[in-house]
Amino acid sequence: MKIKIILPNSSPELIKDRIHERKAIAGKGTKIDMICLPKGPVSVENATDEARAIPHILDEIKRAEQEKYDAVTIDCAMDPFPRAIKEAVKIPVVIGGEASRLLATALGDKFSVVTMLPSAAEVIRHNVEASGMGSRLASVRAIDTPVLELADHAKVKEIILQEARIAVEEDGAHVIILGCAGMSRILTYVQEKLQVPVIDPGGAALKIAETLVSMGLAQSKRCFPTPPSKEIK
Amino acid sequence: MKIKIILPNSSPELIKDRIHERKAIAGKGTKIDMICLPKGPVSVENATDEARAIPHILDEIKRAEQEKYDAVTIDCAMDPFPRAIKEAVKIPVVIGGEASRLLATALGDKFSVVTMLPSAAEVIRHNVEASGMGSRLASVRAIDTPVLELADHAKVKEIILQEARIAVEEDGAHVIILGCAGMSRILTYVQEKLQVPVIDPGGAALKIAETLVSMGLAQSKRCFPTPPSKEIK
Amino acid sequence: MKIKIILPNSSPELIKDRIHERKAIAGKGTKIDMICLPKGPVSVENATDEARAIPHILDEIKRAEQEKYDAVTIDCAMDPFPRAIKEAVKIPVVIGGEASRLLATALGDKFSVVTMLPSAAEVIRHNVEASGMGSRLASVRAIDTPVLELADHAKVKEIILQEARIAVEEDGAHVIILGCAGMSRILTYVQEKLQVPVIDPGGAALKIAETLVSMGLAQSKRCFPTPPSKEIK
Amino acid sequence: MKIKIILPNSSPELIKDRIHERKAIAGKGTKIDMICLPKGPVSVENATDEARAIPHILDEIKRAEQEKYDAVTIDCAMDPFPRAIKEAVKIPVVIGGEASRLLATALGDKFSVVTMLPSAAEVIRHNVEASGMGSRLASVRAIDTPVLELADHAKVKEIILQEARIAVEEDGAHVIILGCAGMSRILTYVQEKLQVPVIDPGGAALKIAETLVSMGLAQSKRCFPTPPSKEIK
Amino acid sequence: MKIKIILPNSSPELIKDRIHERKAIAGKGTKIDMICLPKGPVSVENATDEARAIPHILDEIKRAEQEKYDAVTIDCAMDPFPRAIKEAVKIPVVIGGEASRLLATALGDKFSVVTMLPSAAEVIRHNVEASGMGSRLASVRAIDTPVLELADHAKVKEIILQEARIAVEEDGAHVIILGCAGMSRILTYVQEKLQVPVIDPGGAALKIAETLVSMGLAQSKRCFPTPPSKEIK
Amino acid sequence: MKIKIILPNSSPELIKDRIHERKAIAGKGTKIDMICLPKGPVSVENATDEARAIPHILDEIKRAEQEKYDAVTIDCAMDPFPRAIKEAVKIPVVIGGEASRLLATALGDKFSVVTMLPSAAEVIRHNVEASGMGSRLASVRAIDTPVLELADHAKVKEIILQEARIAVEEDGAHVIILGCAGMSRILTYVQEKLQVPVIDPGGAALKIAETLVSMGLAQSKRCFPTPPSKEIK
Repeated sequence: MKIKIILPNSSPELIKDRIHERKAIAGKGTKIDMICLPKGPVSVENATDEARAIPHILDEIKRAEQEKYDAVTIDCAMDPFPRAIKEAVKIPVVIGGEASRLLATALGDKFSVVTMLPSAAEVIRHNVEASGMGSRLASVRAIDTPVLELADHAKVKEIILQEARIAVEEDGAHVIILGCAGMSRILTYVQEKLQVPVIDPGGAALKIAETLVSMGLAQSKRCFPTPPSKEIK
Repeated sequence: MKIKIILPNSSPELIKDRIHERKAIAGKGTKIDMICLPKGPVSVENATDEARAIPHILDEIKRAEQEKYDAVTIDCAMDPFPRAIKEAVKIPVVIGGEASRLLATALGDKFSVVTMLPSAAEVIRHNVEASGMGSRLASVRAIDTPVLELADHAKVKEIILQEARIAVEEDGAHVIILGCAGMSRILTYVQEKLQVPVIDPGGAALKIAETLVSMGLAQSKRCFPTPPSKEIK
Repeated sequence: MKIKIILPNSSPELIKDRIHERKAIAGKGTKIDMICLPKGPVSVENATDEARAIPHILDEIKRAEQEKYDAVTIDCAMDPFPRAIKEAVKIPVVIGGEASRLLATALGDKFSVVTMLPSAAEVIRHNVEASGMGSRLASVRAIDTPVLELADHAKVKEIILQEARIAVEEDGAHVIILGCAGMSRILTYVQEKLQVPVIDPGGAALKIAETLVSMGLAQSKRCFPTPPSKEIK
Repeated sequence: MKIKIILPNSSPELIKDRIHERKAIAGKGTKIDMICLPKGPVSVENATDEARAIPHILDEIKRAEQEKYDAVTIDCAMDPFPRAIKEAVKIPVVIGGEASRLLATALGDKFSVVTMLPSAAEVIRHNVEASGMGSRLASVRAIDTPVLELADHAKVKEIILQEARIAVEEDGAHVIILGCAGMSRILTYVQEKLQVPVIDPGGAALKIAETLVSMGLAQSKRCFPTPPSKEIK
Repeated sequence: MKIKIILPNSSPELIKDRIHERKAIAGKGTKIDMICLPKGPVSVENATDEARAIPHILDEIKRAEQEKYDAVTIDCAMDPFPRAIKEAVKIPVVIGGEASRLLATALGDKFSVVTMLPSAAEVIRHNVEASGMGSRLASVRAIDTPVLELADHAKVKEIILQEARIAVEEDGAHVIILGCAGMSRILTYVQEKLQVPVIDPGGAALKIAETLVSMGLAQSKRCFPTPPSKEIK
Repeated sequence: MKIKIILPNSSPELIKDRIHERKAIAGKGTKIDMICLPKGPVSVENATDEARAIPHILDEIKRAEQEKYDAVTIDCAMDPFPRAIKEAVKIPVVIGGEASRLLATALGDKFSVVTMLPSAAEVIRHNVEASGMGSRLASVRAIDTPVLELADHAKVKEIILQEARIAVEEDGAHVIILGCAGMSRILTYVQEKLQVPVIDPGGAALKIAETLVSMGLAQSKRCFPTPPSKEIK
């Protein structure tokens, strides 16, 4: 099968490392392509970024369908406007935030999300509650690190570990979702230290997309009908 | 006070009647201006329309703040991407869907929404549940009338009345929200026939906006922080 | 329009300051009268007080309807028996606790209530949960100050600020409701210090009442039917 | 032990039959007295009746505590102002509506309440949802029979059976609560016909009261603190 | 009436003390017999223990029905597979965990469970949430004491008191459930120290069983149908 | 990777067809073995069957871990005692009922389950609600066909289609879960007729198991700790 992964930002320099991580977990018969948006914000960290990116995301999803991809993933810890994304095409589209929550609920009763910025934490907390899974959420924690310090990978790794540890020991989380794509290299470290499953949203989206294609499934058009074409000024 | 009403579509011909309805309920000291979007879909009937409209809505909200309006309303029965809308500015922004639900919960235990199209009904049902008020929702009903027949106002009025009656008598609704702006002329008719309160979302948004301005309130920047300016390609 | 505000206690000395605060936010065309109860407890701080006051509240609401008021508000941070209040008359009746919650949910995802006594805090927490909005409640905090110290306004102001700050910084509140009418003079101070919206329940009730009158709405008699007259011994 | 049963109305003619039913299920060591209110509405069928009765209910509960009863029950399918009732005394007070719901949840996943009047049905539905047990409620059904026909016991029995049957077969109820005290004579008939448990609220209250006394339990004063005495005008 | 109490473990040495405690609260006309399982785990502290015990529990319940007992209780703070237990027979079966929650909700808005082991705490927390009463749960706390120290009763008593105090003062519990049968001797001590109701699950099960027998009630076969006999290899 | 599929019944004749279906959707690198239980009920249709099967299920799961399988699935539309199953081993165990719900929530807002027997329908409805996903459940429908008629495949296919159609058109389901393993051959037929996604629980379990193995994930031992070995009589 052929899956297209869309980074919902306009930062092509992120592709190289990310596609490597995705290929490492892809099924043997899966061919992956990864793109970012030709226009739009350079990163997605709040609802405004999502709003500025969404028209371009829709365009890329439709293009993927025309290009005969079997499925599309939005490689992102947030859920930028999932209804529009699922209305856009008939092939399955899977979004990172949603996919990571699904896996988390299979692995434990309560999960926490650890993300970078307080603004993203508010959006993610809201997304979980709006999805009807609020009773499964232990906490959303932001590390709130100034951007410059993010260059110091060793330091960031320890800060993330610390927040994840609080999520487990004080908030009662059984599972951690890393709420930021750039964090995935840190995943194994946190998982080993805390001995709880740690989920990468972009990876979860890819594997759920493969699952849907294998099973002949896609989002229900009864819930997300493809809109008729309409005059847009 | 000075309030700007934004129709989230690109159909200026709707303004004339609509502004008249809004002025009829505005407070004595309230000055109202109404605009529609310079670009974007001609109507908002599904999540795709919302996604295509949202960048233009954000631009108009920001412009309203620069023009020193005291508040903005989105005159719509749906909730197009409310987090981005509330992040955009510091002046209060009130959205029709949300405002109508707030009033409905003060007037009865259960409310129903009657709208035009099944696609809009799915979006509205989801919005209510995502807002945490699902336990107060009796039903969302679509009249599903072919567009051509909408020209026959007398007929549409009866069809809406019929759906609203089922909502009250079978679904247990105590309050009806008319989930479509063009329906407001029918409001009084339905209210008299069924003897339950019938709420017009756009009107609700205007009155809640006045309330917030009078009380010195606006959306919490702790929940909806104004994002820093960011590179957009 | 003409609105009657009922203080649900028998302390007429509270009227003078309170009516001044309400007039400051009333619409230009709104005429306000404020009364307290001729009989009943001198303050409402627990469910027993509510129970002792409710027959007198019902009498005053009915009198207001006979006097041709357009609406009534119960100027109170609690919700003394709202079903009976809404059954009593056909004109809109709005209660402070409920009105403040409605506005709070429009301004942020999570709100806290700060009140004086632990007994009132238990009642308010219960009211929020019983209204179906428990998922939006961050916390209810009581300042638990001995009555004598309440005379020291400067001190009380700081104690309230302190509890509100904990609500925001530790409990995750985006919005504060001041759960006690006497606190409203402190509202601006807390709002400026914490930079989150702070809501006065009595003021919220007044503005929602104006909204309902403007829109021709009142509580649904389908939910709150006016009871037939009945033999009372 | 000595338990006082309070009928929350002013209709002493109801006592004779009712006390007989209660004694039939009381434990061997339980002494029962039953009273009605000296003042107040002759029946409790809506929130207004509850509000008119509650001060007299509180007086009778306190009197029972002074008379050294071990517990009090409110023999009623509704829940007239339970917080005030539980604040009033330290001895256990059990209310019919609440007690019947507790037993129902032990007997099946979903229960329905069958009551006489639509007005009572609205109040009961609201009480169940406010108690946090809304997810266990299949339906509340009112038989809506004109008062005069209630004299025809055979007819009423069939009408109740019919509504209870719909609750079971269409609404999915596993358990029926008879939401009206006068219905208890019909209980066995419905239970045999439908082969599901049928609960009498007043009886449930009595047995839960016995349970609490045997186990040395009463309502938590941490939740329902006895209020300090207060000036009442 | 004649009630059989089943300890869901294979430790007959626990019977002597336990039956004494149960008889102390039983009604005057109630005859009690207590057994433990002939096979199965020596204690029930996690889901695996429950799974290993359940076939033997079902056998004992059926035997009790054949022996003409009026009811059965499972004397346990957990809920080992309640659906199978309720399917097994037509006489009422009441389980400790469930019965204690029912009484707790009548005594306060929020309850906590204090148990011995973290593994049991996870199971109990899950049971409460799965029962639909999660909104009433303040916390589940484990004392996590090494087995050897449990021999030091004075020490255990203080540790339990300490956890229960935190549940009340920090977690907001109004009621404590002692989530472990061996704790019941400590119950009175904790209740007196904290002045909140403290519930023993096994005792609660017994009294609810008596209640059901008195009222002619048993679990609904509509919800828990007795399965047809089936080939078991 | 190597995955063991456990049919939780003692009917080896089911293996031949079933393993064929599973291999059809398995990833290229996945080696599958399928077994049924050596002892236990011949089918799992109610909670009693689950209880009789669970000790044998646990034995087989542990054996699979010893045999170095990478993951185990329980190929079943129900969830037989998931906590014990997840406590038993460290390798991932995925259960059909749970896995199908996870996929369903990614494909639409509301799903229905169509199963054979009313007894199984009650168990499945309860499982969904206990998992915290009750707000996403449209309905559970049983076809209630006498066993003999099940031999007439063409007839069963039409009956299932009919129930699924009602679930979609009247109950509002966007997605159908076929709540019975033997139904999977009918899946494509229903999906094509109704144009909504139809999920086979056993297949869902297999694909989620593959996903977990690829991502290095397994159930959290913080939530499902492996119990210490214990004396079992």
